[in-house]
Amino acid sequence: MKEVQLRIPATIANIVCGFDVLGFAVNEPYDEITLRISDRPGIRIHHTDGYGLPEDPALNVAGVSLQAFIKELGTDTGFDLEIHKNIKPGSGLGSSAASAMGAVAAANIALGNPFNHSRLLYFAMQGEKVAGGVAHMDNVAPCLLGGVTVIQSTDPPDAISIPAPELQVTIVHPQIEVKTSDSRKIIKKEVPLKSAITQWSNVASLVAGFCTSNYQLISKSLHDVIFEPTRSMLIPGFAEVKAKSLAAGALGGGIAGAGPSMFMFSTELETAQRVEKEMQSVYEKLGVEYKTYITTLKKTPLI
Amino acid sequence: MKEVQLRIPATIANIVCGFDVLGFAVNEPYDEITLRISDRPGIRIHHTDGYGLPEDPALNVAGVSLQAFIKELGTDTGFDLEIHKNIKPGSGLGSSAASAMGAVAAANIALGNPFNHSRLLYFAMQGEKVAGGVAHMDNVAPCLLGGVTVIQSTDPPDAISIPAPELQVTIVHPQIEVKTSDSRKIIKKEVPLKSAITQWSNVASLVAGFCTSNYQLISKSLHDVIFEPTRSMLIPGFAEVKAKSLAAGALGGGIAGAGPSMFMFSTELETAQRVEKEMQSVYEKLGVEYKTYITTLKKTPLI
Repeated sequence: MKEVQLRIPATIANIVCGFDVLGFAVNEPYDEITLRISDRPGIRIHHTDGYGLPEDPALNVAGVSLQAFIKELGTDTGFDLEIHKNIKPGSGLGSSAASAMGAVAAANIALGNPFNHSRLLYFAMQGEKVAGGVAHMDNVAPCLLGGVTVIQSTDPPDAISIPAPELQVTIVHPQIEVKTSDSRKIIKKEVPLKSAITQWSNVASLVAGFCTSNYQLISKSLHDVIFEPTRSMLIPGFAEVKAKSLAAGALGGGIAGAGPSMFMFSTELETAQRVEKEMQSVYEKLGVEYKTYITTLKKTPLI
Repeated sequence: MKEVQLRIPATIANIVCGFDVLGFAVNEPYDEITLRISDRPGIRIHHTDGYGLPEDPALNVAGVSLQAFIKELGTDTGFDLEIHKNIKPGSGLGSSAASAMGAVAAANIALGNPFNHSRLLYFAMQGEKVAGGVAHMDNVAPCLLGGVTVIQSTDPPDAISIPAPELQVTIVHPQIEVKTSDSRKIIKKEVPLKSAITQWSNVASLVAGFCTSNYQLISKSLHDVIFEPTRSMLIPGFAEVKAKSLAAGALGGGIAGAGPSMFMFSTELETAQRVEKEMQSVYEKLGVEYKTYITTLKKTPLI
């Protein structure tokens, strides 16, 4: 296959209590990429979006991921990659993961699937390292596997997509900048044992809630006692969005990845729409530009 | 109903990585209790085993649990309780939880089920406080609910039994004393964030492994990077039992609760029997008295 076109989903890491471990994919927004195999060695990247991302492969997350892919392949295959991003960089919606994972997934399809999921995750993580300073896996895993994912280990990369019920997802992206690297800096290196136990109690219950389609258990488990109290301070309107969304009937939610976007789960579309209205009213009042999405859990794998 | 007889299962808390949160019930060993409603107010406890436990209700975990039950009931109902323990106190196999939960479960049946599971867990936790200094829930929850349990919250008590596949369980109880209160003392009050993340990654994967009957995932997730490294030092032969059990084909396992018992999961009875032989050989060589059990996950609730 000489040309591959793919839609790459936005993803939301952590799912409130599962820092660095849980994540999920959504049906919107998504990036669009076209990858062509070329007789000319090397990687050429062209962005058709307006985000001004670097097109030098050594500085571009998709480029770095493809370089890792090519290195392990051991050939001098050339790639022309056209990327149209709809997932805004720095939104907390897995924009860099989409670029990284999209590129290697498309390359893998184009070359007849030489690599398994674990290796594809590894390549994409090399791109994530360029974007966030850490080769984290909690966006690339749901981007590739779909649904709700649990990371079992990062070395070697090992993640699974677990059963999950239908979920409506309302997202608000206040148009402020919170860099993942900054958001990681404010995290303490030690946590009180008591908080850690509360956290893995919620993680265990949340995973059980997804696996058994128990909405009530999902709702009760969406609490983060370690990161949200500090990270949420970087996001204007966070507390109000959360309180009003829950009052409007959302199951729960919180910061999307490192923020500044926030997400809320609901069981019904009507609830998700009420939640969107509450989110809009908060940022209208604060005078902060924002964008909202109503979408659903994307359950299918990328490849 | 004037008289209730119950078999109360042994339970194993933590399941390696889920400290204070996960637990499971087994079919053997079990305690046997007989509870009779009496016209004479007060609680009278008689032990037919040889463990020399206190029979004063204020000092006995079953007695304290029943007192909490009676207090909330608001009547002066009297109980005669006969306990025959097969679960040795201080074994790490939920002996105190069996006494506590057994007594209140029997009382609830005898009186026509005035209380729900959450309240019964609360009463039994009052008994656990007498035994271990902490009102922990990770033995009483599987004792009552059966199967593999996840604690969602302790106040109010809220736990669920999650789906789980058939599992063989081999247990060895080296006849040394490790008090739960001592075993808790050596735990640090702060944990490195990195270890906490590894722990909740394993907890998430283990719960997903149980819920989806994925033995490989269960096996990969049975690791404890926080407590086992220190707690296992209190148990002679721990490292050897673990290594030889895994080599014999066990899925994984570790310390039962606060120890000194250890457990290993296997998929097949033959493997569980090979694991038992390895455990026996370790303690024969060390010259430590021991007792072994081969049993299975008890999937039914107590009431």
